Amino acid sequence: MGETAPERVVVLLGAGRVATHLAPALIGAGWRIAQIYSRSIESARRIAEPLGVACIDDISDICRDAHIYIVCVADEALPTVASTLCQQLAATSNPLFLHTAGSVTMDVWRDAGAQRYGILYPLQTFSKERKVDMHEVSLFVEASDEDTLYATEQLARSLSDKVYRADSSLRARLHIAAVFACNFTNAMYGVAHTLLDKEGIPFDVLLPLIDETAAKVHALAPHKAQTGPAVRGDQAVMQCHMEALADNPALQELYKQISHLIANS
Amino acid sequence: MGETAPERVVVLLGAGRVATHLAPALIGAGWRIAQIYSRSIESARRIAEPLGVACIDDISDICRDAHIYIVCVADEALPTVASTLCQQLAATSNPLFLHTAGSVTMDVWRDAGAQRYGILYPLQTFSKERKVDMHEVSLFVEASDEDTLYATEQLARSLSDKVYRADSSLRARLHIAAVFACNFTNAMYGVAHTLLDKEGIPFDVLLPLIDETAAKVHALAPHKAQTGPAVRGDQAVMQCHMEALADNPALQELYKQISHLIANS
Repeated sequence: MGETAPERVVVLLGAGRVATHLAPALIGAGWRIAQIYSRSIESARRIAEPLGVACIDDISDICRDAHIYIVCVADEALPTVASTLCQQLAATSNPLFLHTAGSVTMDVWRDAGAQRYGILYPLQTFSKERKVDMHEVSLFVEASDEDTLYATEQLARSLSDKVYRADSSLRARLHIAAVFACNFTNAMYGVAHTLLDKEGIPFDVLLPLIDETAAKVHALAPHKAQTGPAVRGDQAVMQCHMEALADNPALQELYKQISHLIANS
Repeated sequence: MGETAPERVVVLLGAGRVATHLAPALIGAGWRIAQIYSRSIESARRIAEPLGVACIDDISDICRDAHIYIVCVADEALPTVASTLCQQLAATSNPLFLHTAGSVTMDVWRDAGAQRYGILYPLQTFSKERKVDMHEVSLFVEASDEDTLYATEQLARSLSDKVYRADSSLRARLHIAAVFACNFTNAMYGVAHTLLDKEGIPFDVLLPLIDETAAKVHALAPHKAQTGPAVRGDQAVMQCHMEALADNPALQELYKQISHLIANS
């Protein structure tokens, strides 16, 4: 006796994209999810039912003896959910509170009155439609103290092979890098989609190019993988493209700026 | 007799990235490459030798009885190579002349005095270091007349399952779309790389995110796949990111512009 029981019971709060992927990954890693909470019982049920997990939409019904509470709600809802949750569990045995938002600091837990808390930030773009292999996702962890960090890392390592420590400032940098590598990359795909759509060409013709562009940077650093008129300094082609974009000054400006960035890298 | 012999003998001019990938693909598709020409015999040899093909660095040594001559040299070298080639072959049996440059019109062949000519434009980013499955590459063809177009399509279809017709203006649009989807996407990876490098974080942590971002648009249109602060209208996070980029006004401006583009799509 006297040993700490392994922390294997989790309650998940939130039913968005992160929760959708985290819930099956947790179960796959041997955790028991006691409940999934969402303001919308339908959303909670959508995730919970296929996994045989209970769901609730009233936070006062929350299971009080879980070891870990993982909150994956929208950033702006986090302060309220965190403080309500901590109030509900004030009289319990000091559970571990985690959230998954890269942009919200641990202060949200301290302000809510939590004692053991941390962050489990998955650096991935989740969509409800697509399965993601959580083992491949980079997870960044931070916690209130060394013991809690250890517990948070244990959880993270059970889910992924790629676990790193990152404080708020590092997480903010990671998030900006991810915005460029993912959100802005997708915006570039979007521009290409719009341009092709105008010509009646299916976006599919670009998929091999998109895949190869992503595959290349597994082996080459992006600045070595760079191709195209800007890196060649091909003014004639760039001039042509600028003229072709004359009907869309915003795109024209973007073309100029990114070409300039490439030429000066 | 009286039947036209299948056009199966090719001469390749150029030893850059396109030639590097096109040469083995042609041989794999059953074509015989009579010669590979390059101003630099070392460059020609690098491609030709592993394939058991002859190489030359003097265009007057060119094999005069090939059926197809494919020129994949730099855009700015094309007019000179095309006219020299056509002069050398003026007395021969009317071969098919092709080039692979998306941004150069068929005028380059007409001006050089060719009679049967066309364009075979592969929409892909080639690097010498990586193998590319040519069957997966979208190939866009254009030619001087219907018969020549048919011959060009035959060649293209032997290489790839994705062959489309495209005139100069469509090819220019495709090229711009490719610049966004490939060159500018890689530039976004480059920014992410620079940001992580500053923090001592390996670029590898982003690869699962980059792969998933590319994989998503196979199933969802980019505007449906869009995630991140800009599409959520999350001003607080965007403000944070803008402040973190204060030491680099060019990146800050780019962040603002692309976020604006996303918000308005």
